[in-house]
Amino acid sequence: MGNTFGHLFRITTWGESHGDSVGVVVDGCPSRVPIALEDIQRELDRRRPGQSDITTQRKETDRAEILSGVFEGQSLGSPISILVRNEDIRSKDYEHMRTTFRPSHADYTYQAKYGIRNWKGGGRASARETIGRVAAGAIAKKVLAAECGVEIVGYVKQVWTLKADVDPNTVTLAQVEANEVRCPDAKMASKMIERIKEARKDGDSLGGIVEVVARNVPVGLGEPVFDKLEADLGRGILSLPACKGFEVGSGFGGTTMTGSQHNDPFYMDGKRVRTRTNLSGGIQGGISNGEHIVIRAAFKPTATIMKSQETVDEEGHDTTLEGRGRHDPCVLPRAVPMVEAMMSLVLVDHYLMQRAVKGSD
Amino acid sequence: MGNTFGHLFRITTWGESHGDSVGVVVDGCPSRVPIALEDIQRELDRRRPGQSDITTQRKETDRAEILSGVFEGQSLGSPISILVRNEDIRSKDYEHMRTTFRPSHADYTYQAKYGIRNWKGGGRASARETIGRVAAGAIAKKVLAAECGVEIVGYVKQVWTLKADVDPNTVTLAQVEANEVRCPDAKMASKMIERIKEARKDGDSLGGIVEVVARNVPVGLGEPVFDKLEADLGRGILSLPACKGFEVGSGFGGTTMTGSQHNDPFYMDGKRVRTRTNLSGGIQGGISNGEHIVIRAAFKPTATIMKSQETVDEEGHDTTLEGRGRHDPCVLPRAVPMVEAMMSLVLVDHYLMQRAVKGSD
Amino acid sequence: MGNTFGHLFRITTWGESHGDSVGVVVDGCPSRVPIALEDIQRELDRRRPGQSDITTQRKETDRAEILSGVFEGQSLGSPISILVRNEDIRSKDYEHMRTTFRPSHADYTYQAKYGIRNWKGGGRASARETIGRVAAGAIAKKVLAAECGVEIVGYVKQVWTLKADVDPNTVTLAQVEANEVRCPDAKMASKMIERIKEARKDGDSLGGIVEVVARNVPVGLGEPVFDKLEADLGRGILSLPACKGFEVGSGFGGTTMTGSQHNDPFYMDGKRVRTRTNLSGGIQGGISNGEHIVIRAAFKPTATIMKSQETVDEEGHDTTLEGRGRHDPCVLPRAVPMVEAMMSLVLVDHYLMQRAVKGSD
Amino acid sequence: MGNTFGHLFRITTWGESHGDSVGVVVDGCPSRVPIALEDIQRELDRRRPGQSDITTQRKETDRAEILSGVFEGQSLGSPISILVRNEDIRSKDYEHMRTTFRPSHADYTYQAKYGIRNWKGGGRASARETIGRVAAGAIAKKVLAAECGVEIVGYVKQVWTLKADVDPNTVTLAQVEANEVRCPDAKMASKMIERIKEARKDGDSLGGIVEVVARNVPVGLGEPVFDKLEADLGRGILSLPACKGFEVGSGFGGTTMTGSQHNDPFYMDGKRVRTRTNLSGGIQGGISNGEHIVIRAAFKPTATIMKSQETVDEEGHDTTLEGRGRHDPCVLPRAVPMVEAMMSLVLVDHYLMQRAVKGSD
Repeated sequence: MGNTFGHLFRITTWGESHGDSVGVVVDGCPSRVPIALEDIQRELDRRRPGQSDITTQRKETDRAEILSGVFEGQSLGSPISILVRNEDIRSKDYEHMRTTFRPSHADYTYQAKYGIRNWKGGGRASARETIGRVAAGAIAKKVLAAECGVEIVGYVKQVWTLKADVDPNTVTLAQVEANEVRCPDAKMASKMIERIKEARKDGDSLGGIVEVVARNVPVGLGEPVFDKLEADLGRGILSLPACKGFEVGSGFGGTTMTGSQHNDPFYMDGKRVRTRTNLSGGIQGGISNGEHIVIRAAFKPTATIMKSQETVDEEGHDTTLEGRGRHDPCVLPRAVPMVEAMMSLVLVDHYLMQRAVKGSD
Repeated sequence: MGNTFGHLFRITTWGESHGDSVGVVVDGCPSRVPIALEDIQRELDRRRPGQSDITTQRKETDRAEILSGVFEGQSLGSPISILVRNEDIRSKDYEHMRTTFRPSHADYTYQAKYGIRNWKGGGRASARETIGRVAAGAIAKKVLAAECGVEIVGYVKQVWTLKADVDPNTVTLAQVEANEVRCPDAKMASKMIERIKEARKDGDSLGGIVEVVARNVPVGLGEPVFDKLEADLGRGILSLPACKGFEVGSGFGGTTMTGSQHNDPFYMDGKRVRTRTNLSGGIQGGISNGEHIVIRAAFKPTATIMKSQETVDEEGHDTTLEGRGRHDPCVLPRAVPMVEAMMSLVLVDHYLMQRAVKGSD
Repeated sequence: MGNTFGHLFRITTWGESHGDSVGVVVDGCPSRVPIALEDIQRELDRRRPGQSDITTQRKETDRAEILSGVFEGQSLGSPISILVRNEDIRSKDYEHMRTTFRPSHADYTYQAKYGIRNWKGGGRASARETIGRVAAGAIAKKVLAAECGVEIVGYVKQVWTLKADVDPNTVTLAQVEANEVRCPDAKMASKMIERIKEARKDGDSLGGIVEVVARNVPVGLGEPVFDKLEADLGRGILSLPACKGFEVGSGFGGTTMTGSQHNDPFYMDGKRVRTRTNLSGGIQGGISNGEHIVIRAAFKPTATIMKSQETVDEEGHDTTLEGRGRHDPCVLPRAVPMVEAMMSLVLVDHYLMQRAVKGSD
Repeated sequence: MGNTFGHLFRITTWGESHGDSVGVVVDGCPSRVPIALEDIQRELDRRRPGQSDITTQRKETDRAEILSGVFEGQSLGSPISILVRNEDIRSKDYEHMRTTFRPSHADYTYQAKYGIRNWKGGGRASARETIGRVAAGAIAKKVLAAECGVEIVGYVKQVWTLKADVDPNTVTLAQVEANEVRCPDAKMASKMIERIKEARKDGDSLGGIVEVVARNVPVGLGEPVFDKLEADLGRGILSLPACKGFEVGSGFGGTTMTGSQHNDPFYMDGKRVRTRTNLSGGIQGGISNGEHIVIRAAFKPTATIMKSQETVDEEGHDTTLEGRGRHDPCVLPRAVPMVEAMMSLVLVDHYLMQRAVKGSD
């Protein structure tokens, strides 16, 4: 609840965007999983600002420290505490909005809920909060790889109206990382990059869709009825900043099909039960069926823009907010490791739960 | 977790589709809320099979009994246990699929996960499981109405490719209940009904989209960061059978806009902070901002069809499943009270949480 | 939380003492555990009123119905719902205390907390609430027996000032059930029975201590740091009505020893690590060490007595309450299955957790 | 669960005794509570080793850093992360027990459960883990004081066989802090100090009892039935290292009384309902009744002693462990702030819950 996520593999993130530091405590990680700082740093580097010229230019090295839970390169089974200091805190960038609510940001709702906020930045609603998630997700990926060989690959599927053509069955991490927009459709990637640069010049921002596939998922993950796998995936991913939609398999598109078109026929592939199509997206009745799990997350265009906007202030006056400082014209490339992290966290959590509750044969 | 949903207002549903009965225990309901059996029965009647000629013809009266937690017409603050007996259990309808997995149903995944299943029907994966949710949702609606005047209206927004035009700001329950497809766009409703009847004749099924609006929601509901309001709404609604997608506000559609088009400008409406547009769908930074909350849920076409399908059996042989028995050509009209229930449950849960944690002025 | 107990093996009890019925939903039970109604009924019969002439004479048959979760004699992995109808509801026995608070009962605190109470009996604070616990405990015992051979034996260790001499290493269920006070020290049992009969005649009541031993507990159960095994056992047992104290191993008595007297020396018993003494009570650092787990629960004398008592009424007037109706002179014999149930529930819950989180070799 | 405690006011502690640091994340703290570093440091100083000559001489300054959640001296409503670096890590003190299990420590059970342990000290089972609890408890105390004026005073009630005479109704913090054993019975305190010094000289250790009183507790805290106030208090306190027993009010002593002796008669004190005696310990039916809450916690003698002990090693050989390094002859004085912290945490958690669920008048 609140700042904790997961049932058996639980993470608690903490830290404001412009406070001293941000971090995460990972509880419930099985013992004796090999964990190296580099595993975590590699994922944080994919999330960090300033990694390319199409993201925000906030300068953060986002160096992780592991404070507990790892001993001689292995997890102890005790909580793993990870800390990242904030570095590039330009609070003066925020001075002009100390008492002015930025449209479609969380300034107003936080102020209304808590009666106080750290106006020096986005506080907990900032994308910096996801540092803890991505660090924890790196550990989740290690557990999944070690325990059951699950492989998770995410990529940018769409920016603005530009839709990529990607085969989730075969796409590789290398293809994703081949360009700074993290879109493995090279041709579309170029167009996306152009469009993002244009948005930056305009002081405007773009949204889009991240797609993630999990391959080699064991059959049987998902706890009926409220912890159906898609329900927990949805919750995890919808809790990411700026995420406004989630779908699995055929998703919204599948609503225009008939049952006879949409049902996935079963067949035997040797001794393994398979489906000929995968409109279910690897989940049936809330439980993984062994096919690839395919999900999509919709991100709205980032709320920070460099344009003049109508708004109000804390005293209840209409006013105008001028764009100033730095902005991220498109969060999608950095959202890829975030969505991967949430998927990894949900899968490892359900993997552990399934280990607990399954019949004893 | 598992069969329990909610943090402070918690429901636990139980019961197999073809067992003795189904039910729910509602825990955490505030005391002294007026609760009448009719409040619950009314919602169950909207959910029940056989209520019109475009739904499944399983004959169930779905009569609720309140076994505890209500005394002289008021909630006691103790758990409210509600029971509904199953009546029309035609297990022989299922005899032919005792060992055969129905495509895109949960038969295979349940068998793989649990090594056993009640093959006489869909068990927990059946839509009958939602009886408990709808009964609990009726109580949640009473609490919301009594405590803060929240009003929740759901309706069918789309069936197959047929999309209705509905204004969430003004739509009424009476308009929704005016036709059996629960679509307040009367013209489109007729087309939907025609299309559903055609699907029934074909032995096929249709999916679609339910849209729900919550009006008069207090500012400040939603717990950062993992219990953002949209995250809990998403989890609740994605846990409904056949739901493959969820979105809030602009959702997937908003991904093709720019930030300057998408941001909702603030303005003062007397002493109240309002937004000129509501692409945020009433939630900013995971917290309600006082505007209408608008969400959409995508339902795939029902998996049960009356056509011959390729599949496998428990012994690992390829086989063919013939359509037999009764089928629900379109679950959408009955899904409306289900989605409303989940939204009510999430809102009342967050209402109670907000009452707990808010600063004390 | 509230009316739900357990992390992976979760029970939710419901029902007021003088309402329609009481019951429990058991969620998280592994599938394919053999469960017969008699397993449950046998434990309920040990708990039920009127079973001997030293307990309350309320006449309840306490017949259990299994409404879900069991199919052809085996658990399905879905929630197991169990219902017991209330029968002997003499609400007129309570009429005279409709607005008068019984001393050391929960009448006043419930009224203060909820602003309402079912004055026809003790409501949720009644020992009838434990029916659900005992029924669920019967299932937990079946799981423990099936999965890891754990054996749980409880007995009355003390009534009033009368202390029994019992060896937890060897005591058997047959010895416990050999007399109606459930004390395996036959000589002391006779004295206890005499003393209880005397208390009944006096219209007074007695407290005492229940001791429970769990044998064959696997090494490794218990989750540091807040779900230490003794912490969860303590919580479960202290939540029983009238329980005022809990201790494990040497407990309060151990406080007068020195470390060199109290430490349990390790030695090798073949390939097994054992301790020469067991002052730890089978738990070290919150984790089971394979020795017998021994706990004790202190129960105050039952609050209902047949004597005149000073009290106040709902309107805030001093008044006198006369004893009337039936009373239970000593709850201890019936508390034995209750404490056993809570211990079984905690152990099975931790057994499942340990299965989830242990390293994978 | 695991390393997280609480329902609405939740703490997650992390850190091994001989790792880099230890800490806590406090989630669910209401916003705008004044919090100063000194509030936390003051409590940590009462807990820290080396504070007097009757405790362990490990040299730790235990300086706390607040990393998040506090802004300009007030809580933000976001997670409060607190970190304390370990300083005096003499791992060589532990070298000789790298593969040898210390009797009545957690070495063996941790090794059996996790297959790995940080042998450089007690890891999570060390009393250093309680730093996070005490820091969080300091915040809980601030919330309680600010919101409802609750006052919590703990003291050493017994060391070895030496029992103090203290009146929980009147005892003050100043009286407690007047001597290094934290026993407000000055005469008995001297004897205790003598006895502890003797134990130190002997290389032996002593146990005892801590008693804590909470005064000014509002009526109505406690959630039936599994989160009865005494159940949550018991769980919290029994999760402290070395705690083997817990009791509330009359506790184990009350078992030798009759009901007519034990019941607390109600009377009107002006408009307030009071009880003439307080054998209930301020809790009836699991809910606070407005009288002082009085609990006691039994601590076994510390396991670390400077004597030669029989034990086994990781390879399964019988062996002997020699006493070496530093030891704490009596943890009781330092246990006082620990028990106070757990009581504060439970009370603030229940205070928030009660605010959420109470009826709305």
